[in-house]
Amino acid sequence: MSLTLHIGNKRLSSWSMRPWLALKKAGIAFTENVIPLDQDDTRETLLALSPAATVPVLQKDDLTIWDSLAICEWAAEQVPSLWPADPVQRARARAVTASMHSGFGALRSTLSMDLQRPVGQTSVDVACWADIERMEALWAAAKTGNGLYLFGDWSIADAFFTPVATRFQTYDIPLSSASRAYVDALLADPVYQDWRAAALEESFNAPFH
Amino acid sequence: MSLTLHIGNKRLSSWSMRPWLALKKAGIAFTENVIPLDQDDTRETLLALSPAATVPVLQKDDLTIWDSLAICEWAAEQVPSLWPADPVQRARARAVTASMHSGFGALRSTLSMDLQRPVGQTSVDVACWADIERMEALWAAAKTGNGLYLFGDWSIADAFFTPVATRFQTYDIPLSSASRAYVDALLADPVYQDWRAAALEESFNAPFH
Repeated sequence: MSLTLHIGNKRLSSWSMRPWLALKKAGIAFTENVIPLDQDDTRETLLALSPAATVPVLQKDDLTIWDSLAICEWAAEQVPSLWPADPVQRARARAVTASMHSGFGALRSTLSMDLQRPVGQTSVDVACWADIERMEALWAAAKTGNGLYLFGDWSIADAFFTPVATRFQTYDIPLSSASRAYVDALLADPVYQDWRAAALEESFNAPFH
Repeated sequence: MSLTLHIGNKRLSSWSMRPWLALKKAGIAFTENVIPLDQDDTRETLLALSPAATVPVLQKDDLTIWDSLAICEWAAEQVPSLWPADPVQRARARAVTASMHSGFGALRSTLSMDLQRPVGQTSVDVACWADIERMEALWAAAKTGNGLYLFGDWSIADAFFTPVATRFQTYDIPLSSASRAYVDALLADPVYQDWRAAALEESFNAPFH
């Protein structure tokens, strides 16, 4: 019955943050195994865990899940409140989550997540600006109700956008007031704050990303 | 109660093929709206359907789902047999499906799906060969049992790999015998054959991709 979530180190691993937040929010107990990224032996370590050679990886008995969204779907089978209860809202939440999972490549590569990087702007090309605009449009279209999160209570969709919120903060990206309020809500979350506190104490990777 | 699946034209739209196959396999009746890709007004048409401006889009009453995986998850809520019944196998199926959904960019861009393209090799760079090798390794690691498909009965995972199977056929990619058998099984499927027959009759897009 032991459950282990293998994650990249918290300063850098935006993919790992998503299921980590979801498992914590769901109250699912797990052992955390932090794998420092960008080290000489990182790839070897990852290949021993899964054919994808990526983090995160969830292991439980004979189950190995090596994709962030698949781990979140597994968690939602245990704790269904990780998705909205209403089927229409759940489908919409899955759509925005899957969009984040498969897209926004320019944003992800230009504004790489680095929780130790001092706040400051960076040069942003046209493709990245287009992704930022698409992100804000996606949030505006998705937002339901007047709560802090996209679909009422916190959901897996919010887990997927928390790394984006850190990027917008780190690189001091100008945002609409609605987007800013959403970013602030995600970054104020106590579960995310736990992740961030650990990230700030890491010393694996010297140069800023 | 009317259900519409907006798809790109069948010759080119690999993303549209996946939920189309899943809905057909599930026996969920829907109206199909084909949107020719690469036309002057394509983007305008897509933007009217969803903020992502992409196909596929599923519409049902007040529900609009604009992501292929989210549409498949919606379909699986109606017809659970679209995923394996066993929770461990279901989690593994979701992992390989999500890997396809988010990755293999070099393979997708170099070996673009074009069902009207005459069979023949193309130049394949190192990144694309690496993706081909990763795809074969993924299939080998995922395959369960001795059936035709990855997880026993046909599942959403097989829907996601059917466009890859067409690319491997079109570009005459050398494969292991196990991978070849899987590709042949996907391409022999009668539901895919219906898609292919319609694709061959299309005349929207003149040049080969």
